[in-house]
Amino acid sequence: MNSEPLPLCNWFGETPKRGVMARGKRPVRSARVAECRVGLVGFGTVGRSVARILCERAPASLRLTHVCSRRIRRRELDWLPEDVRWTDDVNELLSSNVDVVVELVGGLEPAGEWIRSALRAGKSVVTANKRLIAHCGPELLELAHQMGGQLAFGASVAGGIPVISALQDGLAGDCLLQVRGILNGTCNYVLTEIESAGVSLAAAVEEAQKLGFAEADPSEDLDGLDAAAKLAILARAGLRVQLRVEDVLRRSIRDVAAIDFRYARELGCTIRQVSRAEVSGDSVFAAVQPALVPLPSPLARVQGSQNLVIATGEFGGETVFSGFGAGGDPTAVAVVSDLVSLAKANTNGARPAAARAPKEIRSDFFSPHYVRFTVKDRPGIIASLAAVFSEHQINIDSVLQKPGYPKSSLPFVIAFEACSAALLEQALDKVRPMEFFVQPPVSLPVLN
Amino acid sequence: MNSEPLPLCNWFGETPKRGVMARGKRPVRSARVAECRVGLVGFGTVGRSVARILCERAPASLRLTHVCSRRIRRRELDWLPEDVRWTDDVNELLSSNVDVVVELVGGLEPAGEWIRSALRAGKSVVTANKRLIAHCGPELLELAHQMGGQLAFGASVAGGIPVISALQDGLAGDCLLQVRGILNGTCNYVLTEIESAGVSLAAAVEEAQKLGFAEADPSEDLDGLDAAAKLAILARAGLRVQLRVEDVLRRSIRDVAAIDFRYARELGCTIRQVSRAEVSGDSVFAAVQPALVPLPSPLARVQGSQNLVIATGEFGGETVFSGFGAGGDPTAVAVVSDLVSLAKANTNGARPAAARAPKEIRSDFFSPHYVRFTVKDRPGIIASLAAVFSEHQINIDSVLQKPGYPKSSLPFVIAFEACSAALLEQALDKVRPMEFFVQPPVSLPVLN
Repeated sequence: MNSEPLPLCNWFGETPKRGVMARGKRPVRSARVAECRVGLVGFGTVGRSVARILCERAPASLRLTHVCSRRIRRRELDWLPEDVRWTDDVNELLSSNVDVVVELVGGLEPAGEWIRSALRAGKSVVTANKRLIAHCGPELLELAHQMGGQLAFGASVAGGIPVISALQDGLAGDCLLQVRGILNGTCNYVLTEIESAGVSLAAAVEEAQKLGFAEADPSEDLDGLDAAAKLAILARAGLRVQLRVEDVLRRSIRDVAAIDFRYARELGCTIRQVSRAEVSGDSVFAAVQPALVPLPSPLARVQGSQNLVIATGEFGGETVFSGFGAGGDPTAVAVVSDLVSLAKANTNGARPAAARAPKEIRSDFFSPHYVRFTVKDRPGIIASLAAVFSEHQINIDSVLQKPGYPKSSLPFVIAFEACSAALLEQALDKVRPMEFFVQPPVSLPVLN
Repeated sequence: MNSEPLPLCNWFGETPKRGVMARGKRPVRSARVAECRVGLVGFGTVGRSVARILCERAPASLRLTHVCSRRIRRRELDWLPEDVRWTDDVNELLSSNVDVVVELVGGLEPAGEWIRSALRAGKSVVTANKRLIAHCGPELLELAHQMGGQLAFGASVAGGIPVISALQDGLAGDCLLQVRGILNGTCNYVLTEIESAGVSLAAAVEEAQKLGFAEADPSEDLDGLDAAAKLAILARAGLRVQLRVEDVLRRSIRDVAAIDFRYARELGCTIRQVSRAEVSGDSVFAAVQPALVPLPSPLARVQGSQNLVIATGEFGGETVFSGFGAGGDPTAVAVVSDLVSLAKANTNGARPAAARAPKEIRSDFFSPHYVRFTVKDRPGIIASLAAVFSEHQINIDSVLQKPGYPKSSLPFVIAFEACSAALLEQALDKVRPMEFFVQPPVSLPVLN
């Protein structure tokens, strides 16, 4: 990525907050935009990242007003605006005037009771709590509906990949028949580690624990409970079918060994923990289990702790979504995206997200380049070309020449190190008139 | 896919229409749900598919009431409900009481004037018209906002992949820095055809034309105009930056030849028409051009006429969306999804999409299976096992044995043809007590 000043994120066409403005001074808000007051319960990795995005980058319509954390002390955080109320008493936050409660504590209770309290008080709730949503989602949605609030849980499955809204809204025009995915990053890390390093499952789990990809007790991941909860949520959102976590057939990945990857490869496959749910008439099938998947399948290509979901629709065929399924920042993106949606729904008639006019439209770019030359061969061609590129301070990375072509029309390729495309074009303008070309050079950038 | 009765698609928890009900009789509607009257302008491949979905599968809140087509005669369509008004006069439709006009005619004019008329009349508009949205999107969105209507164009980019809503809403919590993609299925078909069959570009274009993937004049596709329009729309939705089609650097794919794929492979790459837009501070760069992309990149793996988009965010990293970018049915899914969203926005306080309870939860499934056995080797083991599987009518596909393991703990694999997982489990229960096993068999399904 780059370290230049970041683009202003222009949600709703408002002036976004900047880090500096967020300390003390707040940006002036247009009267048109209703402010949405946000209270955050839980201040772990995700909570901290949500708070940072809200304070430094989120639209002015979203305002972090309360944080409840028992473990963290406020004085450890110099970047948090002074007007954010800090408490270790969740009831203080629940009885405050926040419009939306963001629950990032996890687990069935007391998170469930806190969410019910918030909804009963007419507040909306955003949560990343997969276990709670898998078990109590329909009941909580019904409560939210009755009380006129909303419940959003985009962060509960596949972290930064907006797959719940994609299945529920983006593909609402299709009839989805099947949802498959790699929903547990820990298992995927462990399996790809066994695959690439040939280590035992125990060693791969230990490595994952060291890197923070696996819990001290990894059973929920390895035995499929975590993925089963996510699958139940996806089946509801995409297949519109009630599925309890207990209905999901589960098989542990604990039996998979390095040798299975060797044999799987003989069969043109690799091994992944695959979660899948299918409907057919009034019948549903759902399973989380290690399975052989053909190497060309998108499922086979998911490496490390990434997540992937494939939705199969009657009309749209297969649509694939992939990205970072966990981690503080990607999960925080899902939470803030839910908050933006809630704020948008509350701001009736909000202007569509305005796009700003850029100050500069760059037409040049830096990248390695590939140039194919086709020449009538004679000695000294490369030397003549190299002289021109050297004059332009463009470095040659390699020269490639495949056998089997006639000397009268001989193609060869020069791969250049990263350089300005405009500068390369200038150099090519200089070489183009050289008499040995039988067709003009073909130049392509090499992207990475 | 399957040919069994399809699942009831339960948008909004309503009773959906079924094919039979749609002819003449209409399903009884709950009083709570406001009906959204839809008028369709244009009845080509996409229009026909939209009409079919609306008549046979869409929620009762969406009702197709008008179709305007100059080319097609109504009597050619026996499946269209009798109460749908058919006209060849667009003004009749625009002045009717439809709530939403779906524009599927394409091109700048007269489509633009029709859309302006509809918006001025306070109607909402759904369109798949990439050229119009690329050129006049901001102006039309502003008009819709002023008149209290909405303008949705999810079908204008990447057909069935819900990428516009994903960038605009699903990733709204992130600051996107870059959007890259393969947005033109024709170019991708042509390039992958050159790659796999080693043919010339001209031959690949001719093949694409035969298959209906390329127009008689393929210039807009090959020279990047089509992709540039889509990129301008994506840049607005994702990067929130105004980008005109003319601002996009364009390079044709016409110079790419089979030999370039040979050389690209030497460099660990393949060649794709890549569309990309990046913001950095107040500066933006946008290009559509053939480029070398590393083989492991998701861009390199897009085959045939598929589309793919990679969004790179400051917080969420890379999120990838892929699927069918064109074709009647996938594009129709995008149109109907937009209609569902509009109807949802109009039905204030609509109940969240209800999920139905399935009648049956299947726990068995059919698939090929992989079973690894680890045995103390002696003659006759395969024969003993084969007898049991044959008894259960489970067919062996192949037996694999890798060298280099001790006879005292020898692993080998039997791959089974597709069979019931439960039946295989029964057979394994029978073999498990056999005395030659040094560890229990490991069984995995093979998914495809």
